[in-house]
Amino acid sequence: MTVKQLSLPELVDACVQSGIPGVGLWRDPVQTYGLEATAKLVRDAGLTVTTLCRGGFFTAIAPDERAAALADNRRAIDEAATLGTDTLVLVSGGLPPGSKDLYGARERIADALAELGPYAAANGVRLAIEPLHPMFASDRCVVSTLAQALDIAERFPAEQVGVTVDTYHIWWDDQAPAQIARAGATGRIHTFQLADWTTPLPEGVLNGRGQIGDGAIDMREWKAYVEAAGYTGPIEVELFNDTLWARDGRELLTETAARFVEHTA
Amino acid sequence: MTVKQLSLPELVDACVQSGIPGVGLWRDPVQTYGLEATAKLVRDAGLTVTTLCRGGFFTAIAPDERAAALADNRRAIDEAATLGTDTLVLVSGGLPPGSKDLYGARERIADALAELGPYAAANGVRLAIEPLHPMFASDRCVVSTLAQALDIAERFPAEQVGVTVDTYHIWWDDQAPAQIARAGATGRIHTFQLADWTTPLPEGVLNGRGQIGDGAIDMREWKAYVEAAGYTGPIEVELFNDTLWARDGRELLTETAARFVEHTA
Repeated sequence: MTVKQLSLPELVDACVQSGIPGVGLWRDPVQTYGLEATAKLVRDAGLTVTTLCRGGFFTAIAPDERAAALADNRRAIDEAATLGTDTLVLVSGGLPPGSKDLYGARERIADALAELGPYAAANGVRLAIEPLHPMFASDRCVVSTLAQALDIAERFPAEQVGVTVDTYHIWWDDQAPAQIARAGATGRIHTFQLADWTTPLPEGVLNGRGQIGDGAIDMREWKAYVEAAGYTGPIEVELFNDTLWARDGRELLTETAARFVEHTA
Repeated sequence: MTVKQLSLPELVDACVQSGIPGVGLWRDPVQTYGLEATAKLVRDAGLTVTTLCRGGFFTAIAPDERAAALADNRRAIDEAATLGTDTLVLVSGGLPPGSKDLYGARERIADALAELGPYAAANGVRLAIEPLHPMFASDRCVVSTLAQALDIAERFPAEQVGVTVDTYHIWWDDQAPAQIARAGATGRIHTFQLADWTTPLPEGVLNGRGQIGDGAIDMREWKAYVEAAGYTGPIEVELFNDTLWARDGRELLTETAARFVEHTA
């Protein structure tokens, strides 16, 4: 998604050229290019698919909407398995229209995971609840902190449900380092993502994730937290940013790889 | 600030007409109208000044900037005393340019309060640290939760330093109800403010505070928390919203008073 201006073949080629060993994919471009074709493209290039984004949106109340969400998440799990990644990132969903019940919405997420967790594990896929920044609590994800994510995840085995640690969403939270340790202690850090915090935020706030090094977040500090918690998996850079998307995709990927090394090595 | 399109005399008249018994004031319009003149205007109308907004911005590192901030906060305390309010709301400040050190910035807030707390109490004014929504952590206020605010406030006597409980900033936080109880137990809820959470957020996110009832926050729930914690003070409605500011101010004040009754009574 960082370089969504590139087609999948361009992305794969650019990763290989840049020495980037793995890539997190999003479902939309995979479906457009074709699931099996994408799996072959990435496999033939020797790239790892680090994660698939995204499942989730579990907070609907209407039974038909809930059934549709569960069915869609089963398809996402199938897609992850076909792509060869062991991790499906979950953006859990906001408040249903008219609802003010954050607690109930969070419980509906747990209800959905009780159904999906065993299906995921049977397919070799782990579900990774991503706490999103509290500015997304109403319209995108009622899980706003690592503590909330772990309170849900710990109801299930770690090979079914863990968490996504994303610097952009948690950097402000003085409780997050302790929660990273908590997640690591039970093997629940299923992926680790980087983006920097830059202001002013754009209208709608979704596409304001900053290039590594441009903002307020000390990437080495957060990398040290997840490493101290035992995490040895891939580190993803995930930027949504209209200004970055307007640039040449290969140049942006090269810059991002250089920034990653500069700020984490 | 909810009706900043009204002049101070218009505001005072509209409050009296609407049966609103008190008003929170901001320093800029007070300084423009004149401090003593404002105090007389409000006093003659029989209105209470509930709070003065705002002091704070304590996070600078440069000694001259820190000295200037302390001097400005002493003036704000003097102004609060002259206006007859017992509460100065603090927006504590973001990260200095180039800094990524949230911990250090929070400690500098505590350092400033150690100097200002006794001065405030000697003038009959309590300082109320306002945790701002985490989306303001880098550029406006590194204190993002009630827990963080209380961790700082509790280093000082309650008659010097407490907190501002504002629904807009804390509604997403499942730890906030317990923190409201903690604040109430030591007499540190110095003011209680309402705004609703509406999306999409505008560019810059500052002026997106929603009219009561338009968004995701259950006002009765939060009012019940502060009342259960022993709070019996005024309840302020504080909206910053370009769309609302473009409307007729008296009509907006009437609507806001009606919404307040509808959603809290």
